Amino acid sequence: MAYKSDIEIAQEVEIKPIEEIAETAGIERSDLELYGDYKAKINYNAMDKLQDREDGKLILVTAISPTPAGEGKTTTAVGLGDGLKRLGEKAMIAIREPSLGPVFGIKGGAAGGGYAQVVPMEDINLHFTGDFHAIGAANNLLAAMLDNHIHQGNELQIDTRKITWKRAVDMNDRQLRFIVGGLQGKTNGVPREDGFDITVASEIMAVLCLSNSIAELKAKLEQIIIGYTYDDKPVTAGDLYAHGAMAALLKDALKPNLVQTLEHTPAIVHGGPFANIAHGCNSVMATKMALKYADYVVTEAGFGADLGAEKFFDIKCRLSGVKPSAVVLVATIRALKMHGGVAKSELDGENLTALEAGLPNLMKHLENIQDVHGMPAVVAINKFPTDTEAEINLIKTRCKEYGVEVVLSDVWGNGGRGAEDVAKAVIRLAEGYKQHKYVYELDDSITKKIEKVVQKVYGGNGIQLTREAAREIDRLENLGFGNIPICMAKTQYSFSDDPSKIGRPEDFTVTITNVKVSAGAGFIVVLTGKIMTMPGLPKRPAAERIDVDEQGQIHGLF
Amino acid sequence: MAYKSDIEIAQEVEIKPIEEIAETAGIERSDLELYGDYKAKINYNAMDKLQDREDGKLILVTAISPTPAGEGKTTTAVGLGDGLKRLGEKAMIAIREPSLGPVFGIKGGAAGGGYAQVVPMEDINLHFTGDFHAIGAANNLLAAMLDNHIHQGNELQIDTRKITWKRAVDMNDRQLRFIVGGLQGKTNGVPREDGFDITVASEIMAVLCLSNSIAELKAKLEQIIIGYTYDDKPVTAGDLYAHGAMAALLKDALKPNLVQTLEHTPAIVHGGPFANIAHGCNSVMATKMALKYADYVVTEAGFGADLGAEKFFDIKCRLSGVKPSAVVLVATIRALKMHGGVAKSELDGENLTALEAGLPNLMKHLENIQDVHGMPAVVAINKFPTDTEAEINLIKTRCKEYGVEVVLSDVWGNGGRGAEDVAKAVIRLAEGYKQHKYVYELDDSITKKIEKVVQKVYGGNGIQLTREAAREIDRLENLGFGNIPICMAKTQYSFSDDPSKIGRPEDFTVTITNVKVSAGAGFIVVLTGKIMTMPGLPKRPAAERIDVDEQGQIHGLF
Repeated sequence: MAYKSDIEIAQEVEIKPIEEIAETAGIERSDLELYGDYKAKINYNAMDKLQDREDGKLILVTAISPTPAGEGKTTTAVGLGDGLKRLGEKAMIAIREPSLGPVFGIKGGAAGGGYAQVVPMEDINLHFTGDFHAIGAANNLLAAMLDNHIHQGNELQIDTRKITWKRAVDMNDRQLRFIVGGLQGKTNGVPREDGFDITVASEIMAVLCLSNSIAELKAKLEQIIIGYTYDDKPVTAGDLYAHGAMAALLKDALKPNLVQTLEHTPAIVHGGPFANIAHGCNSVMATKMALKYADYVVTEAGFGADLGAEKFFDIKCRLSGVKPSAVVLVATIRALKMHGGVAKSELDGENLTALEAGLPNLMKHLENIQDVHGMPAVVAINKFPTDTEAEINLIKTRCKEYGVEVVLSDVWGNGGRGAEDVAKAVIRLAEGYKQHKYVYELDDSITKKIEKVVQKVYGGNGIQLTREAAREIDRLENLGFGNIPICMAKTQYSFSDDPSKIGRPEDFTVTITNVKVSAGAGFIVVLTGKIMTMPGLPKRPAAERIDVDEQGQIHGLF
Repeated sequence: MAYKSDIEIAQEVEIKPIEEIAETAGIERSDLELYGDYKAKINYNAMDKLQDREDGKLILVTAISPTPAGEGKTTTAVGLGDGLKRLGEKAMIAIREPSLGPVFGIKGGAAGGGYAQVVPMEDINLHFTGDFHAIGAANNLLAAMLDNHIHQGNELQIDTRKITWKRAVDMNDRQLRFIVGGLQGKTNGVPREDGFDITVASEIMAVLCLSNSIAELKAKLEQIIIGYTYDDKPVTAGDLYAHGAMAALLKDALKPNLVQTLEHTPAIVHGGPFANIAHGCNSVMATKMALKYADYVVTEAGFGADLGAEKFFDIKCRLSGVKPSAVVLVATIRALKMHGGVAKSELDGENLTALEAGLPNLMKHLENIQDVHGMPAVVAINKFPTDTEAEINLIKTRCKEYGVEVVLSDVWGNGGRGAEDVAKAVIRLAEGYKQHKYVYELDDSITKKIEKVVQKVYGGNGIQLTREAAREIDRLENLGFGNIPICMAKTQYSFSDDPSKIGRPEDFTVTITNVKVSAGAGFIVVLTGKIMTMPGLPKRPAAERIDVDEQGQIHGLF
């Protein structure tokens, strides 16, 4: 049988006017700002009227360590929302917005897949409601004001060799990773090394996602550090008087976006910070809003649970006060076999040995969710036609030893119907509310925090600090940044800092190459090796196949 | 008396829901895509239903050569629309969108002023409906695909020293004018000289503004030349298979935006190409749409009439088939006195000598409109409190010699009421339709076209071609680009290529430093000296004063 592509499925299903979706969600028309017929922003003040309403239950969808075989975390989150709705629950989905750049690279779209998608997927994958463009503009306004300040006399004595603020563009453009700007004489700026990050890697993205109001947004923007003076004092966006205009650029981007799934479940798709140098979660405003409107809110966090779930608890929940009720850990048998050492091309036949060898990856994530984060979990196996009965049973047996239920999920092929078992398990788990635990305390030293994450979550022996990292930790603690959360920037492919160590690596240490404060977002980024903040395009970019017809219909998006 | 700022006025006046404005304009609700409550895009297909309707009359608002004293062209265009409506006419305004970058520099907003504004002015001045962000993204996708092509092996043999395509950002950022990108080794691109233009200077802006449909947009994008091969063959966006994805990014940006004036006159604000390296007019789609809905459509074109009106006729009208009915030439007494040699600080007292000395600037523009372009004109004096009766009478006397009426306009202080005399004059003029004339024929050689513009419109003796320009003209004619319109990139401050020669310079030649084909937009850009395509910020940028309050209200925009 010929599979339909995601965009074909999305364009075939009837989409409802967003006003209708809002009405079923209990969102008043006067709180909506329409963006066409199928997208809307929800006004801040909507929240004011909901203060007395009890919060719904928040379900986090996370996953095993990613492999090239794919896990389907967003797809499962979308399908689970639909599944909960099918069971008669008032459900809502609150997930991240896709980044424009990767759409033109290898990745294609990122709005779910198959029969578990948020729509209109073309819009969501392209400009959507302009949030990322606004973030890029605010990022680049700060950069322009910074370089203009230097050009106009550098009153603040900014050391151009110590500027940490980069420019941003929402495009996979490796050519802009390392540049020298300000060339060709004194009317054209001041020559210095510079570079561009992809917009989702901008600290402003993290700031926006962690702000509860315009006032908080502006206060965080003001604290963003853009570099250091000749005598090593931090220079902030506030020192450049940039935060007001930046906040003005972001006033609409801060409003959560309402769309729908293919099954008309309301979905708030808002914010999308990187999951390495940032915390990888959708916006706090969106999550809190959804919790007021719905009884069950399904959300997800970037990469595997070692990064996504850890940051979800230690950064997002801690800074926002949000309290989740249950965790869904997504795995595929194919991915587990890869963790067991099988190549992607060899995944089709039954292979219990490889599965057994790969299962420890799943088990370690489960241990973390249950023991380290203190949360109840269900394992959702995202089904593939190649999975065998014996393979499924093996996972069930192993998980039973941990007291964890394994359910099958087939949302790609069946939408919400394929997630009913996951939904039932989630409802059961969420009944007995358990308070989540943090991996570290805020008043632990920076080094202690890193050690706790590495030892408790990654299962490593400890950490090694480079001389540069040790010096920078000292400096940041002296500057007063010792008591904020840490944000680990680590490879997503391994619990360790070595992407080749798949499965459940043991007896390793993690090398901390440097640390960096995101003073606006309010966390210390801990770097373990090189982290890519500007992707490139592949030899044959997806952009070559993307097209639009005379009626404005997009083709070639996946 | 303390004057209110534009934003204060704009925020005090009651704004109507855009659906109501659309209804009065005869635009069907099903053809609208709302962007919040006060902005909407109008679908392409709206035009299909209107094909049989007779076009309204198009009025071009243009101006004398700009001075630091300001002329108020956009403000007059907005007020004239309101004035026509006050007289009971079905009027609409079709003007350009402001660029985001300059808002943060010196300029402040660009949506009219005083009581003649289009609203919501904050939105229109910031992201509006995202058109410019889409243009920037399409521009930068092409750049990323271009550098990726070179990085991946350079199959097309693009000579990196002959790349003409630049990156774009909608920010005044001089630091990005001249850069070297692709630094730090073979995984990070290919080192080469590069630079950024402000988004409005992107050829894609001109392409969008000259396209009547997605098909035409795509065809034009495909022809954009991004550089040349080692053996000097042009390489196009089509050669990189980029045009489909670029058009996909632009599909919504191509749809005209509907807003309203402070007096609720429907205004289509769409497109905004530079008036030097591009043609400086709003989009063809917007103008054509407005002509179907309204009996009078007021539009404007960038800079003074020597640039704005000439390109309006020779590029926009010629390529689109649009036929204007009358021209309003805006002048201020203060600006004319500056053309007469008075400094900006000395403009307040009556000064008939200076006015007399500056009037030839107005007269030359009038001659051009009447004789060269073959159109009827009225002079609108944009009134200032410092203007004296004697000064006004002097202008009236001089213009009478040309058979041209002078009317006073006070739209800044009085909105449409202040433009009633202009409106009455326009209605009279537009009654006797006259077919406009072109300055040159398309089959004139490139050199002949330039000479005709310089001699007929600028009043110069002729042109001087640099060796480089002469060689490039040959090359472009050999490549088959000899028969498209030319687009003069000249200082706006003088009829000549020397900005200090204000008033009506005589006995000069214009030096053509180079020419460049915009093969997508379909014109040859003729460069006369250095043209700035990336502005910088001033010492104290407007951004430092721009702010947003807790309710999302913007402050500090002018």
